[in-house]
Amino acid sequence: MKAILQRRSIRAYKSTPVAEEDVEYILRAAMAAPSAGNQQPWHYIVIDDRDLLNRVPDVHPYAEMCRQSPAAILVCGDPSLEKHTGYWVQDCSAATQNILIAATAKGLGSVWLGVYPREERMKGLGQLLHIPEEIIPFALIALGYPAEEKGSADRYKSERVHKNGW
Amino acid sequence: MKAILQRRSIRAYKSTPVAEEDVEYILRAAMAAPSAGNQQPWHYIVIDDRDLLNRVPDVHPYAEMCRQSPAAILVCGDPSLEKHTGYWVQDCSAATQNILIAATAKGLGSVWLGVYPREERMKGLGQLLHIPEEIIPFALIALGYPAEEKGSADRYKSERVHKNGW
Repeated sequence: MKAILQRRSIRAYKSTPVAEEDVEYILRAAMAAPSAGNQQPWHYIVIDDRDLLNRVPDVHPYAEMCRQSPAAILVCGDPSLEKHTGYWVQDCSAATQNILIAATAKGLGSVWLGVYPREERMKGLGQLLHIPEEIIPFALIALGYPAEEKGSADRYKSERVHKNGW
Repeated sequence: MKAILQRRSIRAYKSTPVAEEDVEYILRAAMAAPSAGNQQPWHYIVIDDRDLLNRVPDVHPYAEMCRQSPAAILVCGDPSLEKHTGYWVQDCSAATQNILIAATAKGLGSVWLGVYPREERMKGLGQLLHIPEEIIPFALIALGYPAEEKGSADRYKSERVHKNGW
């Protein structure tokens, strides 16, 4: 819960690399997410090659921080794995949210950069990372030890809560 | 992280009510989720009226457990709150995932029941709960103290992880 409330979008990072076991811990959290019919329609591309990270902003207009971040994870959807069609976006979103929480729990900063449904970002990342046609680049998460501090945000709004009907 | 890995879909509940402060704790977690441009395009309907809960399975084919669960939360999307169009499903999914994790942290069982994009479920819940036309019933989460035990699941699959390209 602490990690859920402390999670903020961090866009400035130290150059300290992210340990391989921390990346695995984070991906274990991602894959623990629920999915429709437990179909797990996802793939993960870990990017820690400096040259590749530097080229991400060429294909994503809000990914300038990837020139600084030591790592990033691209969550991809694979609709061919769906038994219950129409849910892969929700499944991949749950996995992405778990990535952010697990990163926060490890003291890492992260930010969710939307890819799907923006055609040019999907196409650009697909080409940069040699992703097969049928796999959909869904969300990019920049990762690194934070070089900015943000307190936890309280976004609770009682007017968004309804009881037993609207 | 423990809650992330322990979270399982629980479909059998004790009749013990869920405390009001636990519901608020869970909704605080939901609203702490990230959203595109921090647009927070969501509403939450808490259902704890026995008669209403009993009628949920009439409009949702997989919601039989609502006849037993002491509570449920319907996450709704409000696309009119979007600055960046096309992301409300992802935002509401992140909020739903936070609900499941926070519930697990409180010792509650929960299950994510897909609503959107199934027209008949959206329409049925919309009518049952008097939801305005422009608001989209997105996901239903049944909640209660678990009457079944499930260990944590390890869904990690190394073949779903790629490094610096596919």
